[in-house]
Amino acid sequence: MSPNRLQQQIQFILEIDKLKSVVRRSYLLNPERRENSAEHSWHVAVMAVLLAEYAAEPVDLPRVLKMLLVHDMVEIDAGDTFAYDPAGARDQAERERQAAERLFKLLPSDQAGELRGLWDEFEAQVTPEAKFARAVDHLMPLLHNYYTQGKSWQEHGVSSSQVLSYNADIEDGSARLWELAQSLITDAVAKGYLAP
Amino acid sequence: MSPNRLQQQIQFILEIDKLKSVVRRSYLLNPERRENSAEHSWHVAVMAVLLAEYAAEPVDLPRVLKMLLVHDMVEIDAGDTFAYDPAGARDQAERERQAAERLFKLLPSDQAGELRGLWDEFEAQVTPEAKFARAVDHLMPLLHNYYTQGKSWQEHGVSSSQVLSYNADIEDGSARLWELAQSLITDAVAKGYLAP
Repeated sequence: MSPNRLQQQIQFILEIDKLKSVVRRSYLLNPERRENSAEHSWHVAVMAVLLAEYAAEPVDLPRVLKMLLVHDMVEIDAGDTFAYDPAGARDQAERERQAAERLFKLLPSDQAGELRGLWDEFEAQVTPEAKFARAVDHLMPLLHNYYTQGKSWQEHGVSSSQVLSYNADIEDGSARLWELAQSLITDAVAKGYLAP
Repeated sequence: MSPNRLQQQIQFILEIDKLKSVVRRSYLLNPERRENSAEHSWHVAVMAVLLAEYAAEPVDLPRVLKMLLVHDMVEIDAGDTFAYDPAGARDQAERERQAAERLFKLLPSDQAGELRGLWDEFEAQVTPEAKFARAVDHLMPLLHNYYTQGKSWQEHGVSSSQVLSYNADIEDGSARLWELAQSLITDAVAKGYLAP
């Protein structure tokens, strides 16, 4: 084990501390502040542990967990792109790809390859693990919005058709969680949290 | 699958959002604010993925990851107990046990048992997984302190003998990481970040 290997690993661990300063649009359930991408990553990883039984296909849970721990790290350079921002979405993929290029290469090459592979797999949305990880990643902000009376939706003038369309890929990861998502959206409209 | 099961799971997922409001003594590397226990849990889980090769004994990494995702949840009721607070330490175990009693029982009984088991295992510090999880959980604030010039150590008048004694159990989880911890502590004293 070269001393340099551990130094590289520690440098990466220090670098990703910055994810705690990337602020998302969603509010905490105690809506005094918005959540950051690091605490969000913890939350969706726990969610995957608890909801794996609803995955559309059997998933390798450890792989889902690693994917969710890694999935937002590129935001350290690329920032969080709001789900309902068409301008941000246009160059999001390229900004995030450049971030992945820089970030994961801080690691020893075997681990750089592993983490980059997990991030690529999440982005490609082909494997059952990637689809289920995306499903919980999208369900979480729906819950945050619903249980803060649509605070972030209203701030950004988002409508139910936008929310339905953006989150439709939850169904690829889990029919049961998509059913839940749809019922939250319908109920949010009925309660006036979300514009029809 | 009873609808009630998913409701219980979602209620638990909403409840643990509160961990994002439990503030620790450690500062972020950008020392504008202290970190919270949710983002810390994410950070140590990533650390475990990257540093598992240094574990004293071979570990089941998925089990370590789940343990680290769960290990601080009891702080939702019990608060974060500062490592160098003897008064807080006196009733910490009892406060956290009561928190575990309430919190995990929000889940369906099989998952309540699984998460409580992971938390108990972490606390008991017997298995290789628990020891390695503790090692990364203790190494992380050392890194935060060292790379913020001892900000939190100095605010609380902590000395190197306290830091060495509190963190000695890193050695049970990883000789290599204990070596790193000791060198950080020695260097922190030499640089004036930490009182001798």
